[in-house]
This record gives sequence, structure tokens and C-alpha cells, in this order.
Amino acid sequence: MAVNLPPLPELYPVHGVRLGTSRAQIRKKDRRDLVVIQCVSGTQVAAVFTQNRFCAAPVAVARAHLGQIAPRALLINTGFANAGTGPEGMNDALRSCAALAASLGCALNEVLPFSTGVIGERLPVERLIAGLPDSLGALSEGGWAEAAHGIMTTDTLPKGSSRRVRIDGKTVTITGIAKGAGMICPNMATLLAFVATDAAVPSAILQQCLASAANESFNRISVDGDTSTNDSCVLLATGKSGFEIHNTDGEDYRAFHDAVRSVLADLAQAIVRDAEGATKFITIDVVQGATQEDCLEVAYTIAHSPLVKTAFFASDPNWGRILAAVGRARIPQLQVDRVSIYLDEVCIVRNGGRAAEYSEAQGQAVMKKPEIGVRIDLGGGAASARLWTCDLSHDYVTINAEYRT
Amino acid sequence: MAVNLPPLPELYPVHGVRLGTSRAQIRKKDRRDLVVIQCVSGTQVAAVFTQNRFCAAPVAVARAHLGQIAPRALLINTGFANAGTGPEGMNDALRSCAALAASLGCALNEVLPFSTGVIGERLPVERLIAGLPDSLGALSEGGWAEAAHGIMTTDTLPKGSSRRVRIDGKTVTITGIAKGAGMICPNMATLLAFVATDAAVPSAILQQCLASAANESFNRISVDGDTSTNDSCVLLATGKSGFEIHNTDGEDYRAFHDAVRSVLADLAQAIVRDAEGATKFITIDVVQGATQEDCLEVAYTIAHSPLVKTAFFASDPNWGRILAAVGRARIPQLQVDRVSIYLDEVCIVRNGGRAAEYSEAQGQAVMKKPEIGVRIDLGGGAASARLWTCDLSHDYVTINAEYRT
Repeated sequence: MAVNLPPLPELYPVHGVRLGTSRAQIRKKDRRDLVVIQCVSGTQVAAVFTQNRFCAAPVAVARAHLGQIAPRALLINTGFANAGTGPEGMNDALRSCAALAASLGCALNEVLPFSTGVIGERLPVERLIAGLPDSLGALSEGGWAEAAHGIMTTDTLPKGSSRRVRIDGKTVTITGIAKGAGMICPNMATLLAFVATDAAVPSAILQQCLASAANESFNRISVDGDTSTNDSCVLLATGKSGFEIHNTDGEDYRAFHDAVRSVLADLAQAIVRDAEGATKFITIDVVQGATQEDCLEVAYTIAHSPLVKTAFFASDPNWGRILAAVGRARIPQLQVDRVSIYLDEVCIVRNGGRAAEYSEAQGQAVMKKPEIGVRIDLGGGAASARLWTCDLSHDYVTINAEYRT
Repeated sequence: MAVNLPPLPELYPVHGVRLGTSRAQIRKKDRRDLVVIQCVSGTQVAAVFTQNRFCAAPVAVARAHLGQIAPRALLINTGFANAGTGPEGMNDALRSCAALAASLGCALNEVLPFSTGVIGERLPVERLIAGLPDSLGALSEGGWAEAAHGIMTTDTLPKGSSRRVRIDGKTVTITGIAKGAGMICPNMATLLAFVATDAAVPSAILQQCLASAANESFNRISVDGDTSTNDSCVLLATGKSGFEIHNTDGEDYRAFHDAVRSVLADLAQAIVRDAEGATKFITIDVVQGATQEDCLEVAYTIAHSPLVKTAFFASDPNWGRILAAVGRARIPQLQVDRVSIYLDEVCIVRNGGRAAEYSEAQGQAVMKKPEIGVRIDLGGGAASARLWTCDLSHDYVTINAEYRT
């Protein structure tokens, strides 16, 4: 059950981007599993991908195609990740792109492939190709919500976010969808997320904007510490709104960047709220560290501790486990007698020991909430970092023990 | 349920070491929870402790005492870890030592305290002191098995190992006990483990021997990646066997070191077999790496992956998760097209992709076993590393969600 994840909001169309979704029986019967996103000629594209060295075949193909030419279409399937599939997997990804390119009358390398699902099994290319006509027939600028469903795996709810902002007298739309659930610990990249805007942004600036915004959103979440082989985030800019950005100085870029970041943050948090088995949404703030790297190391050590995560699941204010996680974080220097720990506004540890005024009842009251803030004050510097994570529940074990059955 | 952990073997007495165990009601009624280990004058001592910066009060006290004088007694309680307890916790540890020192007629700093259990709650010193007479009354060279029970927390079975070896015409005995179960990822140290020998070994050599043997045993296991605040391993050498070691050259030291290491390896593996909720005992071998550090990083990344661990729990040969873990391991260079992965003798990945001859049925057959070997061949060097770990089951979540109730 997702933690306070609202229903899909209205997803504003982005002029110049059409989406079509179908049921191609790729792995399961009768679920939406094949999405085509088509963009108009002249669309600028930015993308970030997983840093996992065993990146999937579609990631390798998409990276290569992006280096050659501006894309005209994205081809996305759920069910199989086409990762760990060797040369055959590359061939499967290319054959899928070729089939879509032929239908659209564009070149093979103008199609970017994306896959998510089981690792290590071949993509059923024939079924994928057979499903293309239905996806193409459904192409529409209003197709965002259907596409949000079409990229889900163990997600229980679709994820989308949309903004209309006025910048420089013009209305700019930014709309995005994402999927997540498990194997979530993006590293300088993200999950499957597709975001489009009708702003006109040169690709170099668009890439800088996406990298920065992804770093402050998708790269700040973790479900289980496992970085996927298929993480990809694409930002399309069609230029159809008449709003143009020419450089990264000034108010216009800042306003645009903030809007992109807020859409990505919505999507990133939605992924954590709907993480596999999640019952709690936890915001970890590490403050007063020597460097941001130190703060992130402490935050990730807490977020990845099975003992901390099971304590959250049990609503047990077992703060000793948080303390132990801070103590084993690999940061150069830690002055334990300056560390304070808060659950929401309740101080549980001060100067490295249990706070004198703390009572178990106070901790219990916070831990029972579905949304919990953990703040670690390292008492040693000016840097800080924020991370979003969730608990470790029986359902996580069940979902991942039964994933392939 | 522990994985193929045999009943406690015969634990040979070590001349010069007496152990006494009692039920002091420290946290739970009517369980063995207070152990005293007394050693004869002249006993040499080596010890390694947790690297967690939030080390517990008893760890700080034991470290300080060891720097001052050779100990005459160890005082061990289960139930409360006396960690995260600030100055009061230090005082509690010292008061406990003082009470035992008074009974034994030795100095306060000749007693080393050890605690295990819940973090962040005060040690009930009065109950501990009240239990001392019973433990002292039980002191006996045959007290090892009782003591193995007396240090357990969520362990389901006691852990002990004992060797009698002939070196240089003399019989040397090495006997040890340990406890583990959760918060297990020792870092240059270990769990609670107490080992004694009747060899005569100068303390500097004994320390070198212990550090080396612990590094190849306790420092090569992980249950959940969480390094405890209380890990401690002590090796006592009474010298009563007549066998003496004077330097680290030559056959005698090597034979002694091998015997110590084999006892520690028994104990370390017993801890993994009886880890919280464990249903599988997994040996991870990483071979042909550039450095041992690289091999360990890959091994720990696999061992700590919740997705890999739940797949083992489900007996699901979902090797894509192992591949993804290798791909995100933080090692400087990884040539993915040279990586091979084996489950026992079954090759599942060759040159970075699914092995041509691999069938799901083969993988399934291995995964159903209670003991599984995972071998990662990085295809790039001469270094290797071995690690022991376990799966992540519903019982792990249950045990740690309900730990304090």
C-alpha cells in the first residue's frame, strides 16, 4: 500500500509530444505494457542513465543513439528489463527500434528504447512488434495517464506530475511520469522517468538542467540500496510554447529549472511512497556535516540499515539502531559527543547520548505516523543533505521472494 | 531456524580458565544472562573491538583497562548493550566491574566488561551485582557450555568450538564461544566471542595472531550489514600447557595460528548459520579481482543486497539481481564482458551474459539447497576473497520488528 500517494493528478498535455499505450502481452496478460512517445521534429532531448556497469541493452542503445541524432520517438516496455542478455539483448533492442522506425518513417537511431522488469530473460520481440500498431493508433497529446500505467511493474499506483508556470509572460508546461517500486537506489541517474516540456531549450542547457534536477530528486531516494540496471530519465523540450531559454544565467533559467526540479521531486517522492511493501515515508536530513558527501554517507547508511528499516516498520522508536548506523558510516571524522538525533521535533539523542528529557512515549508517538522525519545533527560543519526512503516490511520480502512467480 | 548448525560440540577445558554462569534476571526472567570468566595470574590477553564510533560503554572501559594491566576476569551480560548511554553508562560499567573486583580480590581495572542486547537503555546494575554470587559459585573449568548459553540474545542455539592440537610434542587446547544473530557486519573486529588457550604466548604475538585470525573469520561474515556497537573478541592465553611461542616465525606459530583461526572460523560460521531468520547459508567467493579490496567490495555488495537475499530466501535463481549487485559495486574498474557467475558448479553468467548452456532447472536445483556457493569470477587479476552470509526472510523482519516487545 502506497504511503499517502494521491491519485494521479491532471497531467497537462505538452504540445508536440504524443503518447500511445497498448496491451502487448509482453509478460502478463491484459495489462498495459507497451508505450510509444513521439515528439515533433526539432525537439531537444536530455537524458541521464544508470551508473550500474551492467547496464541493460536498451540503455546502451539509447545512449548510442542519443550521441548520433535527435530522437523522434521513445519505445518503452514493461515486463522484461532486457538486461544481462548479452549480444542477443542488443539485437532485440535494435530490432524493436527498427520496427517502430519503419512504422513512423524515421531512422532506426531516431528511436530510443527503454525496458523494465525481470533481468536476464530475453525480450519477446515478436509480441512487442505485434503490439506496436495499437500503441501507434492510440497516440495522443492526452496520453500521459495511460502511459503512466503502461510503464508500471510492481508499482501499485501510477506516478505523474505536471506544472504550468508563467515565465517571462509565457505559459510553460512541464509534465512527467515515472515508475519505481524496487531495486531503487539511483546513482547519478534515475528510474524510468519521462518528462516533457514545451519550452525551447538547447540540448546542452537541457542536459545541465536535467542532471542538476535529477541530482536533487531521483538521486536522493533509496528503497533498498540496489541500483537498477535500467534506470533512465529523459527530458524532452518541444519548443512549442514560444518560451525560449538561451543560457543558464538569469531568472528565466532559474524559474524553469525550479519547475523541472519540482516535477522530478514529485515523481521521486511518489516512487518512495509506492515502494515495494512501504508503510512509512521517511525523510532523512543530515545537517552540520563537514561536506555534503559526509552528510549523504550518513543518510544512506541509515536509509540502508535493515535494522533501522524494520524498526520503522514496527513503529518502534529503537533509536539505538539509528545511532549505530551513524557510528558505522564511512566518514573521515565523526565527533560522537556532538551528534544529536531528532525524530520529527523530538530530540532523542543529544551530545551522543540519550537526551535527558526524552521519553519513550514521545518517540512512540512520532513512529506511529505514516510520515516521519529523521534529523541527524553532526554538530561539525555547514553542509547538509536530504534523502527520502521507506521502511522494510513483510510485504517487501513477499514481493521480492515471489517476483518471478 | 539455524542452517545446519550442529549441537554444541565438546568444549575442552582450558587449564587456568574458569567460567561461571547464572540467571540474574537482567532483562528476561529465568534465562542465563550473566557470565564471569576468570583467568589465572600471568594470563596473556589479546582483544579486538568494534570500529563503530558509537562504541558501547563496556567497550570503552575494556579498551582502557587493557591498556593498563593484564586482566584477571571478564564480566559479560546479555539483555542490555549499555551503548548510547552516555556518562551514566560508563559509570554503570565501572560499578559492575568494581563489584566483581571486590568479590575476586583484584583491582577494578583487572576486570573487563562486555554487554550485548538492547541499545540505549540503562544497564540494571543492581540486578547484575545481585547475580554475581551465583556466577562466582558456578566457576569451573568445565563451564564453557553454560557460558555459551549465557551470552546468547536472539541466537537460537549456543555457539562453541574447541581444538586440541599437537605442536612441538605438546598438546595445546583452544576453546571459544560466541554469540551473534543480528546487527552482524563486523569491521576489523567481531561479535561477542571469548576464546582461551593454554599455550604460553606473549601478548604482542597473541594480539597479532588474533587480529589476523579474526580478519579471516569474523571480519568475513555479514548478516545485515549493520556493524554493532558492542562487537568484542577476546583471546586468553594461560600458558598452562607448557607449549610456548616466542616469535611469529616458524612452524610452531603457524600451527598455533591455524588452530586459532579454525576455532574462530567455526564460531563465525556458526553465527551466520544461526543468523536472525536465516534459512540459507551462503558462501560468496570473488576470484580473479585486481585487489582483495575489490573482491571484498563485490562480495559485500552481493551479501548486503536485499533483492539478492530475498531471492535466496525464495530459492529463486534470479541471477539478474546478483549481476546488478556486481555492477553497482564501487570498484575502480570492472570489465563486465569478462565477468562469470556460478551457483555452486553451475555457470549462470559467462562473459557478462547468460551462459548459453544454463537452464533455469539447474539454477533452481542449487537454490533449493540450504547451503549455496556463489562464485564471481571478475576475470581480471589474481586476488580473491571469501565471505559468508545468509538470506533475508520474513522471520528477520518479524524478529527485528518485535525485538523490544
